[in-house]
Amino acid sequence: MADSSTPLRVPTRKLEAFIASAFEAVGISKAEAKTIAELMVRADVQGSEGHGVFRLPQYIRRIKGGAVNLKPKIRMAREAAGMGLVDGDNGMGHLVMRYATEKAIEKAKGAGVAWVGVRMSNHAGPASLYASMPLEHDMVGLYLAVGNANHLPPWGGLDMLLSTNPIAVAVPGGEEPGIVLDMATTVAAYGKVKTKAQRGEMMPEGWMMDREGRPLTDPRRASEGFLLPIGGYKGYGLALVIGILAGTLNGAAMGKDVVDFNADDTSVTNTGHVIVAINIEVFQPVADFKRQMDTLIRDIRDSRRLPGVDRIRLPGEGSHAARAERAKNGIPLPAPLLASLNELAAQLKISPLA
Amino acid sequence: MADSSTPLRVPTRKLEAFIASAFEAVGISKAEAKTIAELMVRADVQGSEGHGVFRLPQYIRRIKGGAVNLKPKIRMAREAAGMGLVDGDNGMGHLVMRYATEKAIEKAKGAGVAWVGVRMSNHAGPASLYASMPLEHDMVGLYLAVGNANHLPPWGGLDMLLSTNPIAVAVPGGEEPGIVLDMATTVAAYGKVKTKAQRGEMMPEGWMMDREGRPLTDPRRASEGFLLPIGGYKGYGLALVIGILAGTLNGAAMGKDVVDFNADDTSVTNTGHVIVAINIEVFQPVADFKRQMDTLIRDIRDSRRLPGVDRIRLPGEGSHAARAERAKNGIPLPAPLLASLNELAAQLKISPLA
Repeated sequence: MADSSTPLRVPTRKLEAFIASAFEAVGISKAEAKTIAELMVRADVQGSEGHGVFRLPQYIRRIKGGAVNLKPKIRMAREAAGMGLVDGDNGMGHLVMRYATEKAIEKAKGAGVAWVGVRMSNHAGPASLYASMPLEHDMVGLYLAVGNANHLPPWGGLDMLLSTNPIAVAVPGGEEPGIVLDMATTVAAYGKVKTKAQRGEMMPEGWMMDREGRPLTDPRRASEGFLLPIGGYKGYGLALVIGILAGTLNGAAMGKDVVDFNADDTSVTNTGHVIVAINIEVFQPVADFKRQMDTLIRDIRDSRRLPGVDRIRLPGEGSHAARAERAKNGIPLPAPLLASLNELAAQLKISPLA
Repeated sequence: MADSSTPLRVPTRKLEAFIASAFEAVGISKAEAKTIAELMVRADVQGSEGHGVFRLPQYIRRIKGGAVNLKPKIRMAREAAGMGLVDGDNGMGHLVMRYATEKAIEKAKGAGVAWVGVRMSNHAGPASLYASMPLEHDMVGLYLAVGNANHLPPWGGLDMLLSTNPIAVAVPGGEEPGIVLDMATTVAAYGKVKTKAQRGEMMPEGWMMDREGRPLTDPRRASEGFLLPIGGYKGYGLALVIGILAGTLNGAAMGKDVVDFNADDTSVTNTGHVIVAINIEVFQPVADFKRQMDTLIRDIRDSRRLPGVDRIRLPGEGSHAARAERAKNGIPLPAPLLASLNELAAQLKISPLA
């Protein structure tokens, strides 16, 4: 039996089967439950713990609350040569975003670059999941989203009108693994604050601010303050324009309309995303591009370091390492998470994980 | 006569004519000289002082050094429905980027969204200049570029392999002025460091770091350190992927290949940019979108403020205000800038400004 210091490791297949059985138990079709489960486990495999199986109890709670459409008709609502606008019909975000990303890839084969906006979606897991899908087609992926809870006020403000709206960009390498940037526009994502609270640790200055503008470092007081954007007013501006591109432009929620999906199990979130697929071969021969990427990656990795720095990292390195290790050894499930999943299994009358 | 505290004001038409005469004097055609002059003055009018007439002596120096092609054949090198790749033939960046932006707008009319990459260009002034061009066509503009000098090392590194690679996004409003975000991916742009040095002021901590990782606050010691990215490793990642999209993908300079155009008057920079035009009406009725933008802008502007904050600002507000004021009162030219322009006029045997 696992204690908290050595979390249980669960093979990816087993975790996928468990997640799929949970979604089937609440009325999602077998095929769609499998798709969602695969994408959620992919998040865990790449080390995006806050976006994988950790979210399962919440997703099930919102489904039971009637907030999500179990039989969505996901469709292309508007279309032109270089773009599409997907209406997710309030389906699970993973299904909607997989559909949108496949459409973007398909369109980019002919159009060179395809920009697909999404409305009426839901939380879809980590940004890099979708930005990375074009990679196997020798395409660059770019993903933007409106976050599912507002934790960020405009610069100088008190009202949390913005989310941590993320951006992800994935670029293939040749011999080197590709570059995968996945970042919130706040210094810390809200999930990191929750983790600090769970662990009883303090936050460094710069993550959050209280309502008087003073640093807030006690994560148990998180509700008394708000997250800080990267680069001050710059991060605010970035969160704002990402929200406009992924939300407002697509007819999805933005600003005051964003639903806090952590606190609310019944309201439709109308989540907005954007996925852009960029077909490299339309710009230049793919082999040439990959060779240049390898050179760039090596120039950076082999460059001189500040005193005390052991290694220059490329965006995505942590995920690549996690993927190799976890595909082999399974997904670590800390005791509290395992307990919550076993509780869920009992509720849903499905076989528990362990 | 102007002293340094009350700079001379020059009407925009007069400044345009002066700049155009300077470019004509070194061999650029009358029509193209006029185009460059108009765009440079537009930068000054919107308050982007570091990117307007301030750059004229440097541009002329590089033209005289043979670094720029005076008779470029700017052309679409590759094209598909949703994209284009412009080869600027080493022409002045303003001409190349105006061409690329017009192509993006034209293509977006049919394709909905058009992504146009650019190679073999040069410094083209402020990012917002091109991001804003789609606005009058009821389109959103997005611009990325590789900066023209590397001042940023990878996170944890000492070798300046990256530039302050900027991003600009412009979104139209309805009754409200539109949102125009224009930001470098470093906490401060290098031009701000130079301004501090000229004024004999110290920089705040967080702008630069020395080679031991300590804060560098004396701008006269700028060459002993480097700029810091916004949000630490996040800004590094953002600068990197912007550089890949605007540089590597287009066959333009990136990483080690970037030429420091401040220090070098003879080398071809092969500057890369990206301009994306997003045709709003393909997503939703333009009037609806603008109404939602007005609501969002007002929600933000009217939201509650931190103690001591007089006003919540929207990205682009400063430029809108400068534009209104300067179009009326003319462009302020501080005495040292005026002196350098008069010196240039004498060299080129053209009429001085004042």
